[in-house]
Amino acid sequence: VPQGTKGNAPRSARVRVKRFHERGRYDREALDAILDAGVLCHIGFLFDGYPVVTPTLYWRHGGHVFWHGSNASRMLAAAEGADVRLTVTHLDGMVLTRSAYHHSANYRCAMLFGHAERVDGPDEKQSRLRQMFESLFPARWQQLRPVSQAELKATKILSMRIDEFSVKCREGDPQEDDADEHWPVWSGVVPLSVCAGRATASDAAAAKFSAPDFARFSAAPAINVAKTR
Amino acid sequence: VPQGTKGNAPRSARVRVKRFHERGRYDREALDAILDAGVLCHIGFLFDGYPVVTPTLYWRHGGHVFWHGSNASRMLAAAEGADVRLTVTHLDGMVLTRSAYHHSANYRCAMLFGHAERVDGPDEKQSRLRQMFESLFPARWQQLRPVSQAELKATKILSMRIDEFSVKCREGDPQEDDADEHWPVWSGVVPLSVCAGRATASDAAAAKFSAPDFARFSAAPAINVAKTR
Repeated sequence: VPQGTKGNAPRSARVRVKRFHERGRYDREALDAILDAGVLCHIGFLFDGYPVVTPTLYWRHGGHVFWHGSNASRMLAAAEGADVRLTVTHLDGMVLTRSAYHHSANYRCAMLFGHAERVDGPDEKQSRLRQMFESLFPARWQQLRPVSQAELKATKILSMRIDEFSVKCREGDPQEDDADEHWPVWSGVVPLSVCAGRATASDAAAAKFSAPDFARFSAAPAINVAKTR
Repeated sequence: VPQGTKGNAPRSARVRVKRFHERGRYDREALDAILDAGVLCHIGFLFDGYPVVTPTLYWRHGGHVFWHGSNASRMLAAAEGADVRLTVTHLDGMVLTRSAYHHSANYRCAMLFGHAERVDGPDEKQSRLRQMFESLFPARWQQLRPVSQAELKATKILSMRIDEFSVKCREGDPQEDDADEHWPVWSGVVPLSVCAGRATASDAAAAKFSAPDFARFSAAPAINVAKTR
């Protein structure tokens, strides 16, 4: 996401980026790039009048984002039919300057406002779950033991139409005072990323098969290591 | 954090873990371990009556958590003096089973409810900022160009007393149906973690000094690489 390249105008006043407004973008290309690079979001919703923030996995398909869990989930019950905020943040690096003041972080953040709707019907639910797997672990869905009706029934999926959103990113070098240029301390950027480590198979039977690649994570592909029990 | 080892009872009903309640803990040892392993939190607060979720850096010192930013920040203005939720999530791995249904994630999550208070006075603010640096980049604070009064004035710091909180974690192996044991597909855990990459110095002057280590991140220490401009 090139910094400072504004896309469309914000859909509403409440999603307009105010601080460092030049870091804001409002186009689907920028949004989708951030959403599709992640798996974890934080859902904000009201519960008994106070704001709650719950982490959960999400996925995007076309113009909607989805998240899911048990029918018994308090978060899903509170979010269903309600106004929610969905935030995805990638912390891309720490930005160190010669003064404390100009230290910063590189990040990509997507914030969506919307109304969470329940996905209904076993066929629709199954189709959405398949999309989740296809985006997370391509080709895995067809290899799995098929989903049962009882499992579908026990699963709640919420969807939110992508409509009101903003993207805010910082990237690149430190920005600091010219007067600090010769202060004798290291300054620069330390990049951070989510890395996949060595995969561990559940048991010897599982270890006969290959661990799936995680296309979403920029690290080396997972290595299949049979676990000794 | 050993799973299933409950600490103290929850401080309030609203922080009690309901789903997978055996994953919940309410003791400071578990909480502090999660807080001290991270740098990024998500703050939930109300803005014009709707819930907002904003990412920001945080730090803990003793019985308080802190976050900060510009005096012009909307988030800080809305959170100041208000009830907020602060959530820290470490996504530790993807848990893959032979059925879609039992897929899961390993994670450590801390949720705090509280009242955000502004840190006042230049000495107190400076002291809190120093604590932030000491927790993030040990020894760096003393090496930096000293903070000016104007910079302190432009910075707002909020604090929240650690009081109402819960911790929820999942770790370890997949849990799946015995009947799926021989289904022919890989199952297991792919660990995820935040990794620090190769540090890039701002310029030749900065590259003469060593990049700081990031004790918070489990990856190899940052390597100092002079950037060619």
